[in-house]
Amino acid sequence: MSVSRRDVIKGGGAILLGLMGAGSVVKPGKLFGAGDAQEKSSLELPWPYKRLNPEAAAEAGYYGYYAGACCYGAFDSIIGELRKEVGHPYTVIPTAMMVYGEGGVASEGALCGALNGAAAAIFLVTGGLDKKSREPAFALIQELYKWYEQEGLPDYRPKKPKFDIVKSVSRSTLCHVSVSRWCKTSKFKAFSNQRSERCGWLTASVAKRTVELLNSYAEKTFKPAHAIAAEAQSCRQCHDQGGAIENTRGMMDCGGCHFTPRSKHPKI
Amino acid sequence: MSVSRRDVIKGGGAILLGLMGAGSVVKPGKLFGAGDAQEKSSLELPWPYKRLNPEAAAEAGYYGYYAGACCYGAFDSIIGELRKEVGHPYTVIPTAMMVYGEGGVASEGALCGALNGAAAAIFLVTGGLDKKSREPAFALIQELYKWYEQEGLPDYRPKKPKFDIVKSVSRSTLCHVSVSRWCKTSKFKAFSNQRSERCGWLTASVAKRTVELLNSYAEKTFKPAHAIAAEAQSCRQCHDQGGAIENTRGMMDCGGCHFTPRSKHPKI
Repeated sequence: MSVSRRDVIKGGGAILLGLMGAGSVVKPGKLFGAGDAQEKSSLELPWPYKRLNPEAAAEAGYYGYYAGACCYGAFDSIIGELRKEVGHPYTVIPTAMMVYGEGGVASEGALCGALNGAAAAIFLVTGGLDKKSREPAFALIQELYKWYEQEGLPDYRPKKPKFDIVKSVSRSTLCHVSVSRWCKTSKFKAFSNQRSERCGWLTASVAKRTVELLNSYAEKTFKPAHAIAAEAQSCRQCHDQGGAIENTRGMMDCGGCHFTPRSKHPKI
Repeated sequence: MSVSRRDVIKGGGAILLGLMGAGSVVKPGKLFGAGDAQEKSSLELPWPYKRLNPEAAAEAGYYGYYAGACCYGAFDSIIGELRKEVGHPYTVIPTAMMVYGEGGVASEGALCGALNGAAAAIFLVTGGLDKKSREPAFALIQELYKWYEQEGLPDYRPKKPKFDIVKSVSRSTLCHVSVSRWCKTSKFKAFSNQRSERCGWLTASVAKRTVELLNSYAEKTFKPAHAIAAEAQSCRQCHDQGGAIENTRGMMDCGGCHFTPRSKHPKI
């Protein structure tokens, strides 16, 4: 049997379509463009969420902490699990970017890294660019942050811990405040191996709580369980939106830093 | 002219190779796998950086602020510019994820969103997962954060501003403190359109400064210009790593919040 030149071209086309699978329609110029359609889809939020196991995320968070610190640990514990469960687009996002949040961002001591990484993960799977579509993600993040301020943490004990760790209440979402309150309760130093282990447990606790929140949101059963601290609610009446002074913004527990009994440094 | 069946197959292969370009070697099974090799490469840090125009980033940051708030504005001003200049892997990262940092994360008032987004961008193009490769990124982030605490900001005026905006010194990397200090200087309220515009200018200023730092790092001329605040250096002698008390961690300006003259709330 023999065929014409035109048939060769047709044959080539048939091979191409065969490789693409039935039903695919792709312009030849786009064939090797590294999945343009998939790239576009990875830019759009929210990304698809699949119910995760909170304990699996907690364990991943604990080991992630030792691999890339608190922010990476919390983010990768969720996004890494979704990479396994969902695949694309989770296969393209560099979770290592979130290492930046270590120790309140580059050891600055500002926002707790576990909370920073968890908020990014929450937004990726429940948020969106326009104002209306930010709201569900913000409600989940605010609940997570109030829980962190008000509960005795860490509340997850890894299966193979290095030490046993006592709980403390941070009254703040800030790294250095959270560390100081735990040091006061535990009597361990801020750069001890025990404090490091505590932040590993805390990363695991935040990962677990985040997954519980995301699961409840996916199942349409999410309800906030923690209100803004009573003291902050009082402060906000004058200082926040609509108040007579209106000179600040936020939902942090004001009393975690302001108006503490010791306002002057003791004599050295 | 006519050709055999075997020639048809060869012809198909030639078409495939022609579309792929000279020198490409790809297993047929991988041809439509959405760029497996490219997906892998997007997971590895640092991503390729190309010198950017600081003013272009500042303008993008200003408009990004109004599209997706401070954290998105700062992040997208840099990553969006690199998407144009470099292409892949910047074409796969959902910059909208960073909307989460709005108003100190979901309006919590914690870490300034512009600083949060800028730190993520810095880490993506200069950092890495292992401890040694985090150091260059952390040095750049720390310089940015000290600059933010100590300089009169915003220091970039957009080409088409809505209002004129006065500068203030924040003495803090926190959203609510930065807002309060600006409100005190400007006499505008925290939820005024002027304060919003100020945060737009600030996002632009942070984007510009970040690009200047990244350019100097790329050119191997980066040197930190801002030290940890003198007061914090003094505090750290006892309270930070190696100090007699060692009960906290961080590089923030302690005096921005602690030991302020008014430690008790005035009578209402």
